[in-house]
Amino acid sequence: MPVDLHPRLEQDSHQLGVYNDNLLLLMRNALFPWFVIVPDTREVELHRLPGHQQTRLFNQVIQVSSFIEAQFQVDKINVASIGNLVPQLHVHIIGRRQDDACWPGVVWGTDKFDAYSLDDVAVIRHHLAATLGETFRN
Amino acid sequence: MPVDLHPRLEQDSHQLGVYNDNLLLLMRNALFPWFVIVPDTREVELHRLPGHQQTRLFNQVIQVSSFIEAQFQVDKINVASIGNLVPQLHVHIIGRRQDDACWPGVVWGTDKFDAYSLDDVAVIRHHLAATLGETFRN
Repeated sequence: MPVDLHPRLEQDSHQLGVYNDNLLLLMRNALFPWFVIVPDTREVELHRLPGHQQTRLFNQVIQVSSFIEAQFQVDKINVASIGNLVPQLHVHIIGRRQDDACWPGVVWGTDKFDAYSLDDVAVIRHHLAATLGETFRN
Repeated sequence: MPVDLHPRLEQDSHQLGVYNDNLLLLMRNALFPWFVIVPDTREVELHRLPGHQQTRLFNQVIQVSSFIEAQFQVDKINVASIGNLVPQLHVHIIGRRQDDACWPGVVWGTDKFDAYSLDDVAVIRHHLAATLGETFRN
């Protein structure tokens, strides 16, 4: 593990793998294709990350967004760095549908929930590995 | 104006100026230092922007975040591209305080509101111009 994961992120996610030193998580809510990147840093603000880490993180956000668009039927991608509840720096990338449980609202704070099967998670991890290539280790 | 602003963004914001071809807005809610960058594009997804426009936008997000941190007393910066209600691509950069009206929740969808005076907006625009330099025209 590149960084110690905050207990709340650990509890709320499936750890998909390590993505060029950053952690890639799938949130435990099958209602949305909801991924989180946790950069390998103790810094808590995006704008205070060293430039090379910003660039890496932004590129990964773009790649995961493209993955979501290719893999799921979505109408919009939501991207956000919030961190009001979990101070550890993390970026959400979420595929949204006009018929999903929270549309057009945001997903943060929702209590609407559906669990993934372990098979679901394995399939997503497999497709991610095929898409992201050598920079992703699961 | 580099782009036609979506009527909802136009109604909900003070237009601060043009920031290297992108629009910089201040949301009409004095409860939060809440800025929005509207890139000069008709593309609606961040990950489908041409690379040079992505880079410009990310750099501007970093600069506006630093401006908020320097100018306001905030505990966290929230950054997000959502676009579920307003399809025009736009990025929120919001300074948050642990004693603000929505903490620790997100600000999108809140009905809590306070108006800026025109003087408040002028002061913010003045400080922005001083910080951002020649790339910002108000």
